[in-house]
Amino acid sequence: MASKTPVGFIGLGNMGNPMAKNLVKHGYPVIAYDVFPEACKEFQDLGAQVTDSPADVAERADRIITMLPSSPNAIEVYTGANGILKKVKKGSLLIDSSTIDPAVSKELAKAVEKMGAVFMDAPVSGGVGAARAGNLTFMVGGVEQEFDAAKELLTCMGSNVVYCGEVGTGQAAKICNNMLLAISMIGTAEAMNLGIRLGLDPKLLAKILNMSSGRCWSSDTYNPVPGVMEGVPSANNYQGGFGATLMAKDLGLAQISATNTKTPVPLGSQAHQIYRMMCAKGYALKDFSAVFQFLREEETL
Amino acid sequence: MASKTPVGFIGLGNMGNPMAKNLVKHGYPVIAYDVFPEACKEFQDLGAQVTDSPADVAERADRIITMLPSSPNAIEVYTGANGILKKVKKGSLLIDSSTIDPAVSKELAKAVEKMGAVFMDAPVSGGVGAARAGNLTFMVGGVEQEFDAAKELLTCMGSNVVYCGEVGTGQAAKICNNMLLAISMIGTAEAMNLGIRLGLDPKLLAKILNMSSGRCWSSDTYNPVPGVMEGVPSANNYQGGFGATLMAKDLGLAQISATNTKTPVPLGSQAHQIYRMMCAKGYALKDFSAVFQFLREEETL
Amino acid sequence: MASKTPVGFIGLGNMGNPMAKNLVKHGYPVIAYDVFPEACKEFQDLGAQVTDSPADVAERADRIITMLPSSPNAIEVYTGANGILKKVKKGSLLIDSSTIDPAVSKELAKAVEKMGAVFMDAPVSGGVGAARAGNLTFMVGGVEQEFDAAKELLTCMGSNVVYCGEVGTGQAAKICNNMLLAISMIGTAEAMNLGIRLGLDPKLLAKILNMSSGRCWSSDTYNPVPGVMEGVPSANNYQGGFGATLMAKDLGLAQISATNTKTPVPLGSQAHQIYRMMCAKGYALKDFSAVFQFLREEETL
Amino acid sequence: MASKTPVGFIGLGNMGNPMAKNLVKHGYPVIAYDVFPEACKEFQDLGAQVTDSPADVAERADRIITMLPSSPNAIEVYTGANGILKKVKKGSLLIDSSTIDPAVSKELAKAVEKMGAVFMDAPVSGGVGAARAGNLTFMVGGVEQEFDAAKELLTCMGSNVVYCGEVGTGQAAKICNNMLLAISMIGTAEAMNLGIRLGLDPKLLAKILNMSSGRCWSSDTYNPVPGVMEGVPSANNYQGGFGATLMAKDLGLAQISATNTKTPVPLGSQAHQIYRMMCAKGYALKDFSAVFQFLREEETL
Repeated sequence: MASKTPVGFIGLGNMGNPMAKNLVKHGYPVIAYDVFPEACKEFQDLGAQVTDSPADVAERADRIITMLPSSPNAIEVYTGANGILKKVKKGSLLIDSSTIDPAVSKELAKAVEKMGAVFMDAPVSGGVGAARAGNLTFMVGGVEQEFDAAKELLTCMGSNVVYCGEVGTGQAAKICNNMLLAISMIGTAEAMNLGIRLGLDPKLLAKILNMSSGRCWSSDTYNPVPGVMEGVPSANNYQGGFGATLMAKDLGLAQISATNTKTPVPLGSQAHQIYRMMCAKGYALKDFSAVFQFLREEETL
Repeated sequence: MASKTPVGFIGLGNMGNPMAKNLVKHGYPVIAYDVFPEACKEFQDLGAQVTDSPADVAERADRIITMLPSSPNAIEVYTGANGILKKVKKGSLLIDSSTIDPAVSKELAKAVEKMGAVFMDAPVSGGVGAARAGNLTFMVGGVEQEFDAAKELLTCMGSNVVYCGEVGTGQAAKICNNMLLAISMIGTAEAMNLGIRLGLDPKLLAKILNMSSGRCWSSDTYNPVPGVMEGVPSANNYQGGFGATLMAKDLGLAQISATNTKTPVPLGSQAHQIYRMMCAKGYALKDFSAVFQFLREEETL
Repeated sequence: MASKTPVGFIGLGNMGNPMAKNLVKHGYPVIAYDVFPEACKEFQDLGAQVTDSPADVAERADRIITMLPSSPNAIEVYTGANGILKKVKKGSLLIDSSTIDPAVSKELAKAVEKMGAVFMDAPVSGGVGAARAGNLTFMVGGVEQEFDAAKELLTCMGSNVVYCGEVGTGQAAKICNNMLLAISMIGTAEAMNLGIRLGLDPKLLAKILNMSSGRCWSSDTYNPVPGVMEGVPSANNYQGGFGATLMAKDLGLAQISATNTKTPVPLGSQAHQIYRMMCAKGYALKDFSAVFQFLREEETL
Repeated sequence: MASKTPVGFIGLGNMGNPMAKNLVKHGYPVIAYDVFPEACKEFQDLGAQVTDSPADVAERADRIITMLPSSPNAIEVYTGANGILKKVKKGSLLIDSSTIDPAVSKELAKAVEKMGAVFMDAPVSGGVGAARAGNLTFMVGGVEQEFDAAKELLTCMGSNVVYCGEVGTGQAAKICNNMLLAISMIGTAEAMNLGIRLGLDPKLLAKILNMSSGRCWSSDTYNPVPGVMEGVPSANNYQGGFGATLMAKDLGLAQISATNTKTPVPLGSQAHQIYRMMCAKGYALKDFSAVFQFLREEETL
């Protein structure tokens, strides 16, 4: 184990923290960096080396994973004044697990390639719980020959590592999945709410949908109506799960990709606006299935 | 078999024809009526009695099934000048398998009840193929004590007979399912189209969605993208299946129910408009999954 | 003045009350009816005859104006057990100023015609203030030869009486106007809100829109942003004006008409849903321009 | 006149060409550049100096106007390898009349400021006709003290030059106006189409809307229904005017700005999708009022 070469990890937030810990658990010496120094402390105690900048990480590790909140952060970490590219070694493997605009992934890949290194986008699905349990799904885009090298690291953190195609397709897969998820969740909430108001019992309606063509993950695995299922956010006042703001962020990325490719996404676009309104009405931190709650509120005079 | 009491059947169109034939196959003497006399001819040859009006059917049978294209037709057949109610016998069981506004079902139920008879709404899911094969799903609303009597007949025509609650809830269940179906179908079409334009292989994308939270019946059983699945309308130029105009009709019913109950259905409402536009662009008779085709057309200058 | 023949008035609510009073002011003996007896009391004091049913009104007056809240009420008042048609005299002129589904207006017209009387739809625009001041706008549908007879009465209550065409076109005109109004109001609210968040001064932005192609009644006469104009509901905490629920009702009628005629109304339909959601979030009784307030609420974590 | 100092002009396309000519007419020596050399030829004949790059323009002129099709073009012209900033003189005034993302305008302004020069965004409203006639409207963002200097040049090309606030607010004003314009145009098309199908005469309906609260620029100045007005694109098979693709582009910018500022724009977003679909259905080069044509197509079986 001691012979494993170190792996850099940049971005130790809610998701990055448990992911990096799983690397440590698998015996990889971790070279850590986060813009908030206190986020690194815990890793110092675990024996990781903590550095002062992304560039420093690149100096000491030739395999680096980044997990950042948004496109501008990713651009800064890679191409900024103290960014990875300032000191990246030739042949390094840089894996970005952030969820960002696929066009930005492609830009970063070009810049990385110019330095003689390799870039792959590998966004995850599954939340903090899956990150802790090490059973995230990684959707990976990049040169196929490098996929095995990436997989070696990613399997320490996830149970599913899927190769999607050229750079940017990992992001594309994630964005498309989450757009469809948002649409079917809102659709499920609308259908359940309408059925209830028309006199149907929610459990019975869910059962009928789930044996019919309306069936979807949102209806059969993550039903948004309290009382229909156990162990889901709707059973727990929409605590935990995947926050409405995060969904709104992903839908924003889907919009940008759709606009760039001139792809009509009428429901995706409307889903984005609904989450936008919902976040402004006090549901920002609730699980995204709380859209049922948002839509069920009744008119009172 | 010969001892079975006759069953009336009104409405022998695309759906009613094979449904009534299945009753005949199960040994029920059928008393038939259709507004188009030629629709009855085939049944005369099968030994059914053909009558001149819904009232005549009601005179000769105390169990009647109706299968009609829209709310106004149902109102006419039940309460019109020569309607069922003119001659319905006390204690008769009237089962309406049309897909109509649940509020209309409730009105009809009240009128039927005044005559001392019983009304149940029992719309179907599954198309002409399922009607022929006798494996429709019936969603039944009405007094629970009468459900067994209805089920005896409906199981001749369907493999799934679900009790949904009071009168109108059969319609409600069907409308809610189809609204959610329309939404997830359009969502699947948008997500697949966006993914393809972002460089993903359609089969791979479908596989990823189906193992993730975007999974739905439209993605895993009835995928709208040609080449992804076999034996579905998208593999056959969107022939057969469930026509876009029929989906538009059901979405219109969902809108009316939502408006009557002041239920917000932002995506259901937009799905309705999209099918409306699609029908006007030459897709009226195509399967409803052709929305993928409708959305994928590219801008050309 | 005393020689004027009596005019029946059915429906003495917020709008009907001041309208009927204006008829009295113009010297018409009024035969009044309302489903709530207390609504008639005031008219008794003004010398009007108060009756027990719409049928009684029809017995005593051969010109009748009805002002009712919804389609079912109108159907009841005309065709119910004690409805106008029970005792209507041949040649009577029945003017319905309710805002209802144009298809219902046509049905009522047919029923009235069978009794040898004349029906016109004449919905109003302008709220309670305009009703009091006698400067409503009437949009009138019906046989053109009867328009002058209708106009004689309607000019007592309105300053603008427009002939729109056959029966139902009065409703159609009103519904189309209000649908466009709702759309441009929401559009104005979105544009103003976006501009403000991008750093523009609201007054300046309104000025620019009003001299450009974005100009509309909602931007130049009824601006929804507090501080931009005086004497409008936005200057008074969205009190008064045209309530959001009333707009939601009219948009519901537009949807029904659009569904019946298979007309795609993607923005009209979305506007309906937005007012639906808004009414459920505490804005039901606010002026419909409060949609600016609804949309401007910011996301907070 | 001869004593006027030269003005640089970069981007001599459909709009830039007549704009630059108006500068020449007003006696300004023009230093011209376009990425397509043939676009410059005409200007050579008019006595303008033609250069090889934006940098060359910056070397020879300290007032420069840029008119470019999109954000990436603007970034290239300002900050590219041969961009303006390579040779810009201190104190130069750079006016960008392109319609681009206001966030990009702000970025450019920062980069320009670092070189000691001044940047203003000044997008136009009014099409090719207004550019030729010299009566464009300019919406100007930037430091207020420089506004007069900018106005001196802009009044040669436009009749309306409006100061909007800090850098980016010119773009913001334009984007907000065009988003509201798109919404009211589609709303007008929906309302006119619905009214016609409900039996109203289009001219009469337009008249009623224009004297009521549905009134907007799209209904009273640029009505999208053939036969209602003369001298507008709808009277000429939707030739000329403002193309649907250009509107789709501006709506894309509005979406990006809304997403960046977390502003809900449900109708703006849907308008974007409608123009997206419309462009893919053969309307890309038609005037944007052809949305009436797009929506009016009828369902045929």
